[in-house]
Amino acid sequence: MASLADQLSLLLGPGRVSVTPSDLAAHSTDKWFAANPPDVVVHAESAEDVSKVLRFANENRIPVTPQGARVGYVGGCVPLSGGIALSVARMNRIIEIKPEDGVVVVEPGVITGHLQSEVRRLGWFYPPDPASLKECSLGGNIATNAGGPRCLKYGVTRHYVLGLEAVLADGSIVKAGGRCHKNKTGFDLVGLMVGSEGMLGVVTQATLRIIPHPPMRAMLSVGFGSFTEAANAVQQILGSGFLPSALEIADKFTLRAAREYLGESVTPQGEAHLLVEIDGQPESVKGELQQLADIVRGLGCIVLQEALGEEACEAFWKLRREFSYSLRNTGLIKLNEDIVVPRSRLVDLVEFAEQLQGEFGFPVASFGHAGDGNIHVNIMVPTMDDPAIRERAEEALDRLFHQIIDWNGAITGEHGIGIAKKRWWKDAIPPAAHQAHLRLKAALDPNGILNPGKFLG
Amino acid sequence: MASLADQLSLLLGPGRVSVTPSDLAAHSTDKWFAANPPDVVVHAESAEDVSKVLRFANENRIPVTPQGARVGYVGGCVPLSGGIALSVARMNRIIEIKPEDGVVVVEPGVITGHLQSEVRRLGWFYPPDPASLKECSLGGNIATNAGGPRCLKYGVTRHYVLGLEAVLADGSIVKAGGRCHKNKTGFDLVGLMVGSEGMLGVVTQATLRIIPHPPMRAMLSVGFGSFTEAANAVQQILGSGFLPSALEIADKFTLRAAREYLGESVTPQGEAHLLVEIDGQPESVKGELQQLADIVRGLGCIVLQEALGEEACEAFWKLRREFSYSLRNTGLIKLNEDIVVPRSRLVDLVEFAEQLQGEFGFPVASFGHAGDGNIHVNIMVPTMDDPAIRERAEEALDRLFHQIIDWNGAITGEHGIGIAKKRWWKDAIPPAAHQAHLRLKAALDPNGILNPGKFLG
Repeated sequence: MASLADQLSLLLGPGRVSVTPSDLAAHSTDKWFAANPPDVVVHAESAEDVSKVLRFANENRIPVTPQGARVGYVGGCVPLSGGIALSVARMNRIIEIKPEDGVVVVEPGVITGHLQSEVRRLGWFYPPDPASLKECSLGGNIATNAGGPRCLKYGVTRHYVLGLEAVLADGSIVKAGGRCHKNKTGFDLVGLMVGSEGMLGVVTQATLRIIPHPPMRAMLSVGFGSFTEAANAVQQILGSGFLPSALEIADKFTLRAAREYLGESVTPQGEAHLLVEIDGQPESVKGELQQLADIVRGLGCIVLQEALGEEACEAFWKLRREFSYSLRNTGLIKLNEDIVVPRSRLVDLVEFAEQLQGEFGFPVASFGHAGDGNIHVNIMVPTMDDPAIRERAEEALDRLFHQIIDWNGAITGEHGIGIAKKRWWKDAIPPAAHQAHLRLKAALDPNGILNPGKFLG
Repeated sequence: MASLADQLSLLLGPGRVSVTPSDLAAHSTDKWFAANPPDVVVHAESAEDVSKVLRFANENRIPVTPQGARVGYVGGCVPLSGGIALSVARMNRIIEIKPEDGVVVVEPGVITGHLQSEVRRLGWFYPPDPASLKECSLGGNIATNAGGPRCLKYGVTRHYVLGLEAVLADGSIVKAGGRCHKNKTGFDLVGLMVGSEGMLGVVTQATLRIIPHPPMRAMLSVGFGSFTEAANAVQQILGSGFLPSALEIADKFTLRAAREYLGESVTPQGEAHLLVEIDGQPESVKGELQQLADIVRGLGCIVLQEALGEEACEAFWKLRREFSYSLRNTGLIKLNEDIVVPRSRLVDLVEFAEQLQGEFGFPVASFGHAGDGNIHVNIMVPTMDDPAIRERAEEALDRLFHQIIDWNGAITGEHGIGIAKKRWWKDAIPPAAHQAHLRLKAALDPNGILNPGKFLG
């Protein structure tokens, strides 16, 4: 009998099927700690390729793990059961940009940042901005319903997907939604596919909403004496009728690491840091920046810096990203958990993180999207290769996630469940909702070939 | 054997089951042209009531039609197969308003406008604004994914539903989503339920996102010499980096009816009318209003009026609503079709409407949400009781809907399919997407008891 690779080559034609050791290794993992090689890598170049692979795999009960840029943080595209790694990275064309309709049409392999730049050149805006936007692809953003800082004002990926072409497990090509900004024609198949982590279908084309690019942006960088004051500032800003494009918070452990890595002079003073970003028409933004500055001054901030315009804002964001590098620079491994709490729990969360730190002896640094309660809690461990330390790290995560669930929080805001959070999935979801998941999965992928081994088992 | 009503009374206890002629009549219809009485009306008062009814109905294969305020425009809650009309109108409590978390928790029977006022008193904002907001309920808004003018900037109902408690056909109570503004814990059960027109489950509680209320709003009322100029203004405004909260357009037939009903002096001059609404901080709004006024002046508008602040804006909106009453005042019946076209097709749409008018002899007036291409095309017919006229009206609708589909438009933007658009459902949805609908329906409602006779047959 012909090998799987030979069968697939026969099906797809030349140049799409690979079993080279380097390809198998590259397609065995993402940015998380798990890896397992597929038996074969397929580089699909069209919806028809994807359809052929899935029909074949479905008939032969072969696991298929869809992959894009492979930069996820939860092991979501690791081919845990081997089989076929189905990459759509080559499907990377921007098919259409049409501001008059407020839409773009893209293939799933397009890099998010590339789309943003292309749209921006025309004065338009694709808001979702995951931190990895220079390397992540839109297909992956759709699979995980990716977010980012600007989601506070602009919403997550799901709010920008108007239409999808997706291939189901049986190879059927479904076109759902369309290119209209409103559409009530039937069930929300588009929304169901977004965030489904490659377990319900493979997206082969997406029609995305774009909006006018706000011509001006501005930021405040604010140091506070305590996290409580910074969290209070978040509430006061929102309570004053402002919905900033971003409200980013960082705790004292993050700032300490930054001071060590970047130096005292660059790192903002204080025990908590807040970034406020607004955008809009130039004169409006200038005026609102002063209003916001007055609010934070009135709340007793220690230090306040302003940025007006693209370049100055980017400098602030660069500093903010350096916080993350500072943590890496500690030499420790960063377990970056994108948990979400109801916004009123921000202070409780950071106090709980400090408690964890005391109890487990791992440094814990928290920073993130304060406006929507989506905080990245980073538990810093010396290694994940020593089983004893790994177990202790998982105990700390256990404590964290169960506390989050007790607070009616979410164990993941924008990364997804993947393998990383599979352990806590059943605690986070009531049994009846879990059952509903299984019924939907069985309806669209009865043989369970799509991305097996993830949160539905 | 006990009657259905007796069995249900036994199950639910006193005061929830009704077979009075007036109750049966009231629950046989909504605002559309179809009516069919249920065998019994159940007034549910809790999720447990809903669960008991559905478990019983599922075991006994009895059709159940969920109902709320019964003010839909497409016959979506007409109990076409008799059985049980399951009303959640009594479940009308606002359970919680918590601005610190940016959430409210409501029962499905809460009237949309009531929630908006309650939230507004605290300085917060629930943006979805269907025209019927004074009488429609949130459960119905969720069932139809209701929109409104402000959705241009703020998005539709789906973008505000964070969590749902819903009862599935088998009586199981599913809690999906939660109270966090970001949540990637599993598939989007919440989104799947929103817009499912009572065919996948019955919502018994919803957690909705609220945002800071913009402290100021302002509007422009602009008359143009032609619809083409007004549609061009829409593109120019968006192309200048503005995303207004509303961009409402009306064509010359609408304006003519308004002149007859309201008088020349009140109705804006010109052959097309544009309303532009913005909101935000007071100084910003004042400045932006002048920028927008400059843009429309530069495009050669005939007449321009400004409104600043709540009261002045409401006067403009009142006039806009009078356009709709003006059409009713013609004595004709208004077939109000909430179609959507890609925004660049606005002029084509109105020209097509004029052509239809010439061909069929029915007046056709178009107005609506220009920014997202969601235009209400009103075909005015003398009666729907004369079969010959009704058939001719449906021919005109056939022409309209097929043209919309050819343009990659949507046959409904915010009302839903219901019975009214069932005839065009299969033309609007590709076969593979239709199949996917059937599979999802079978997964969650295998006996097909929920709202039978609607778009899935």
